Amino acid sequence: MRYKITLEYNGTPYEGWQTQPSGKGVQDIVENAIAGFESARPTTVAAGRTDTGVHAMGQVIHADIQREMTANKLCDAMNAHMRDHPVVAVKAEIVADDFSARFDAKKRYYRYVVLNRRAPAALLHNRVWHVPGRINIPLMQEAATHLVGPHDFTSFRSSVCQAKNPVRTLFDLTVTPHEDQIWFECSARAFLHHQVRNMVGTLIDIGRGKRPNDIPDIFAARSRDAAGQTAPACGLYFMKVDY
Amino acid sequence: MRYKITLEYNGTPYEGWQTQPSGKGVQDIVENAIAGFESARPTTVAAGRTDTGVHAMGQVIHADIQREMTANKLCDAMNAHMRDHPVVAVKAEIVADDFSARFDAKKRYYRYVVLNRRAPAALLHNRVWHVPGRINIPLMQEAATHLVGPHDFTSFRSSVCQAKNPVRTLFDLTVTPHEDQIWFECSARAFLHHQVRNMVGTLIDIGRGKRPNDIPDIFAARSRDAAGQTAPACGLYFMKVDY
Repeated sequence: MRYKITLEYNGTPYEGWQTQPSGKGVQDIVENAIAGFESARPTTVAAGRTDTGVHAMGQVIHADIQREMTANKLCDAMNAHMRDHPVVAVKAEIVADDFSARFDAKKRYYRYVVLNRRAPAALLHNRVWHVPGRINIPLMQEAATHLVGPHDFTSFRSSVCQAKNPVRTLFDLTVTPHEDQIWFECSARAFLHHQVRNMVGTLIDIGRGKRPNDIPDIFAARSRDAAGQTAPACGLYFMKVDY
Repeated sequence: MRYKITLEYNGTPYEGWQTQPSGKGVQDIVENAIAGFESARPTTVAAGRTDTGVHAMGQVIHADIQREMTANKLCDAMNAHMRDHPVVAVKAEIVADDFSARFDAKKRYYRYVVLNRRAPAALLHNRVWHVPGRINIPLMQEAATHLVGPHDFTSFRSSVCQAKNPVRTLFDLTVTPHEDQIWFECSARAFLHHQVRNMVGTLIDIGRGKRPNDIPDIFAARSRDAAGQTAPACGLYFMKVDY
């Protein structure tokens, strides 16, 4: 039976989603957990291959489970086996045998959280990017509108990004203050490697007056050097997936 | 010069606010930090002696600092010396020499966070109390109204509580759903030992149908055995203090 499973995890102790020789991929934790009650170790497929240190509120995976069990029991069994790890199965459902968490995803949502105050994070250590000093939010909101839509995002992707086509359609990108935090929320069918972190890093540079509001020029340059810094992984959350 | 300093900390790694022979009190971390740039180690006084594992968003302390420095520089110096600890000085201000963070406090605010879903916490591990299953919020809201006001809180205080007078005036206690969380927010001039955690534990018992809505009877019994369980420390946040 194929199950669609929604995961929440703290990305800090892991080397990203993908299985690692070190065993420190979130995928290793999840597959080990399922192997704890299945006769064979399954292979899971995820909607998003989150990087080292990136968190998930709603990562979606699929896995084929031989043992018959209700969706709730599957979550309980996985959570019992992941007890010592900050990874949980939030919900599960039985899906068609040809369902793919990766290829059937229609919309992926990310949130990036900046802590904008003088003092570093204590309770939110490793959960936010600490950026002290004045940040002009309306300027970032205006710049964000230029990122929305279909664009060649070459300037905003990592130099090691392997996607053949650098064109992506950003459905939305909002910049919202929440007390001493700034949330960047965006969605697209798919993203390039480091795209969200490079967009946020560039917006923060604009908001701090370190560069002009030059998004159209950055797109036109088609070069990673044209955009701003890569925001650190710890502020990024993979929020949810629509199918 | 006397400074009033607002602290945020993750209480998980510490044995509460108070200085400990082990050096694992938050007070030890803070006083060691100040000693890093002062010639003598100061004694700090806090508004609330938070227990082991209890967090703070707005603990307030006072300390006498010999070295002349602006409030911002004091915070920066403290934060530099506390870099490896989840404790930060959020803000500071110069106050009168007779100001007491403890005795001049007019109103203390606490928040208690329950995670109400089947799956345990991943991102909020050690930051919430995980209570799965159905919880009746209107029932808890109704019960909460009976806790507000001046009462003899003997039934809601720890057996080791040393306060001479068990009468306290609870100014307010609200119960509010926030997505899959339930927040209990309350304020009083002062609280008894474990009072908030015992109130929340009792309300949760009521909300889960494990006991009737019997707050007046619990007060009348004047016995710790009459009230419900003590909610765990990890869900409690000391939010702020009014002077």
